[in-house]
Amino acid sequence: MKKLLLSLITLGAVTISFSASAQFAKPEDAIKYRKSALTVMGTHNARLAAMVNGKVPFDAKSAAENAEIVADMAKLPWAAFGEGTDTGDTKAKPEVWKQSAKFKEAADKLQAETVKLLAASKTGKEDAFKTAFSATAGACKSCHDDFRAK
Amino acid sequence: MKKLLLSLITLGAVTISFSASAQFAKPEDAIKYRKSALTVMGTHNARLAAMVNGKVPFDAKSAAENAEIVADMAKLPWAAFGEGTDTGDTKAKPEVWKQSAKFKEAADKLQAETVKLLAASKTGKEDAFKTAFSATAGACKSCHDDFRAK
Repeated sequence: MKKLLLSLITLGAVTISFSASAQFAKPEDAIKYRKSALTVMGTHNARLAAMVNGKVPFDAKSAAENAEIVADMAKLPWAAFGEGTDTGDTKAKPEVWKQSAKFKEAADKLQAETVKLLAASKTGKEDAFKTAFSATAGACKSCHDDFRAK
Repeated sequence: MKKLLLSLITLGAVTISFSASAQFAKPEDAIKYRKSALTVMGTHNARLAAMVNGKVPFDAKSAAENAEIVADMAKLPWAAFGEGTDTGDTKAKPEVWKQSAKFKEAADKLQAETVKLLAASKTGKEDAFKTAFSATAGACKSCHDDFRAK
């Protein structure tokens, strides 16, 4: 009975990861896609960072526009970490798949922080924006530390 | 007087393209960014195409979700075609810069079509979705034909 249950759980897991990967024809497509989404996110995040660091003056409109793209992008990469996408042109550590619950938690955390960042940016208040940006940047860093090779 | 006017126009053009490029530290950053945005757009566009071609059944929710990402992405690449980004790891033809008004028109056309596509997707009506998708795909193809090397 225990064996049957385990088989069903394994089957379920395979089905789930298959349907996630099924969105991409080839593993390299998934890898290219997730890196692309992260590149777009990183570019707009860097523009927010420049305002936080005082390299460019704080501009509420620009903050909200960039934060919106960051929040949109933060939703995308995760579906592209399916089975078979652990090798190839990727810096993703094996931990992404070995500690998948922890990875999902980190992805969820980032998304939650970017939602808060967007809300803070829309207030037009520089302090609220800076605080929220710091939390988002922390979520980026923490996930990179654990799941991305140098 | 005419010479001064020409100088001022040239100066204006340089200033404009500088501020567009200024968003990117290096030309290769701009190229990587625009290719990334187009990769994300293309991935979600392909999911819409699969529904149009009957490879997967039409699903109104999925159509709207993917169309939203396509419309968001359609806004992004153009700011990254600034001065100095015509060489390197890019398939962009010299016509992007030589016929910049025509290129802008093509970029605007795509954005307008993706806005209509998103609206059509949100109606949940398969026919409206297919018609709008066809117009978006036409805008993609037309711009690729004119401005992107094979």
